[in-house]
Amino acid sequence: MESKLLNEKFSRRDLIKGTAGAAGIAALAMGGLGFFSKAEAAKTSPATLPWPYKKFTAAEIKQAGDIAHDNWFKGFCSYATLSGIVEMLRKKVGEPYTSFPMELTTFAHGGTSGWGATCGTLIGAGVASTLVAGPKIGEAINNEVINYYANTSLPVFVPSHPKADIKSQNISNSPVCHLSVGKWMKKEGVGFLSPQQMERCARVSSDMAMKTLELLNLWADGKFEAKTTAPVMANEIPSQNNCTECHGNDIPKTSGKFGTGMDLLKGGH
Amino acid sequence: MESKLLNEKFSRRDLIKGTAGAAGIAALAMGGLGFFSKAEAAKTSPATLPWPYKKFTAAEIKQAGDIAHDNWFKGFCSYATLSGIVEMLRKKVGEPYTSFPMELTTFAHGGTSGWGATCGTLIGAGVASTLVAGPKIGEAINNEVINYYANTSLPVFVPSHPKADIKSQNISNSPVCHLSVGKWMKKEGVGFLSPQQMERCARVSSDMAMKTLELLNLWADGKFEAKTTAPVMANEIPSQNNCTECHGNDIPKTSGKFGTGMDLLKGGH
Repeated sequence: MESKLLNEKFSRRDLIKGTAGAAGIAALAMGGLGFFSKAEAAKTSPATLPWPYKKFTAAEIKQAGDIAHDNWFKGFCSYATLSGIVEMLRKKVGEPYTSFPMELTTFAHGGTSGWGATCGTLIGAGVASTLVAGPKIGEAINNEVINYYANTSLPVFVPSHPKADIKSQNISNSPVCHLSVGKWMKKEGVGFLSPQQMERCARVSSDMAMKTLELLNLWADGKFEAKTTAPVMANEIPSQNNCTECHGNDIPKTSGKFGTGMDLLKGGH
Repeated sequence: MESKLLNEKFSRRDLIKGTAGAAGIAALAMGGLGFFSKAEAAKTSPATLPWPYKKFTAAEIKQAGDIAHDNWFKGFCSYATLSGIVEMLRKKVGEPYTSFPMELTTFAHGGTSGWGATCGTLIGAGVASTLVAGPKIGEAINNEVINYYANTSLPVFVPSHPKADIKSQNISNSPVCHLSVGKWMKKEGVGFLSPQQMERCARVSSDMAMKTLELLNLWADGKFEAKTTAPVMANEIPSQNNCTECHGNDIPKTSGKFGTGMDLLKGGH
């Protein structure tokens, strides 16, 4: 298994267009185990990804943003982002999107069933990019979307039908709901489930749907580049990049580059 | 909108069997906006949840655990948990599970594309419970699964075909990948992507698949009780319950019970 992993890790790099980022490499490494290649070979059933895609115009991307915003008030953030994309794909492509149960990540709101971890918009976004581009590219796109989420002053989108006026934008430095919404609420001076917080999270849902579609458009044109090193590769453990925010200056050392697992990645034992 | 929210919040409580936990109440509150009721009314398309379910025997639950464990090595944690359940449902029920693209949350590994937030097993588990029981009950079940994840010394499952020997079990106090796997690796004395860490995460994937199936079985018998208050309700912000672990003793005050949003929940402005 290890040697197959090693062999395919490099030879299949070109499956990610442009510079293969670490997320891509990690995905490719797992592809070497036979999973991704199988999933993306035959296309006889909706069980097989990727599904068909038609590029969105700028107006259609904005339309997806407005649907996401409106749908936040029907099913919160993860549903909003996913359904903003899927409702448009139902119109533009039809099946298999028409039969797709787009409520399936609704639970991911509030950082997964209210536990404050991954922002639900990023789960909805990742499902959408995976359906359209398959698990490998879908993850590389999701990694870029998360990087955008963590490093952009959000929300950006101004919806056609806002439900509240908000005045603040904020950089979260994190994909974590608790940190992202908490910092924004503090800046805006409002509490959780205030009209302002709900409007903000609805707009962030739109932003993530729209960024995902922009990257899917690039991918459809063969121009998507995986530019961001996934923190799991950069920090030798799944992580955010804002280590000091929780750890202060006492950041634990990892056991080295992937610890004892480095042997496995090298093909050794 | 607000008054409809208020009216349906209480009248629809009985949709969650047994004690309606806070996660259930929150879900029901959103259901009052028309989303969940619509999704669970007609059942003419696979787009409509819930999908059919047949109870698992104890032997079948163990089988799902073994599939999840084996599949970790094909697509990491989120794929492992989801596919462990879906592969069995394909055998036991058939469609629409047979046509379901069970790779769609593969990106959620490593706390979402390697960013260390929600453990991917919990995303796979949430999708599975949502497909089977619908978004409302699916979330209430996921909330219980996350509580189990955070408060149990894991992993519990011993697979039929282990790929490495491991000696440690650990309580994460958190649904966050970074904290959960980080604490376990420290206890075990191994690094990330070591054979031991991979075996541990594969077994945790099995544990979450199996716990989800146990709760779905209870639900199918009308015996599922939502017992755990979702932290979003307990702490007035999406969060974990281990506040001091990051904040020390300097835990920020929330702006009160759902801040200014309390007015909205009360039906006022």
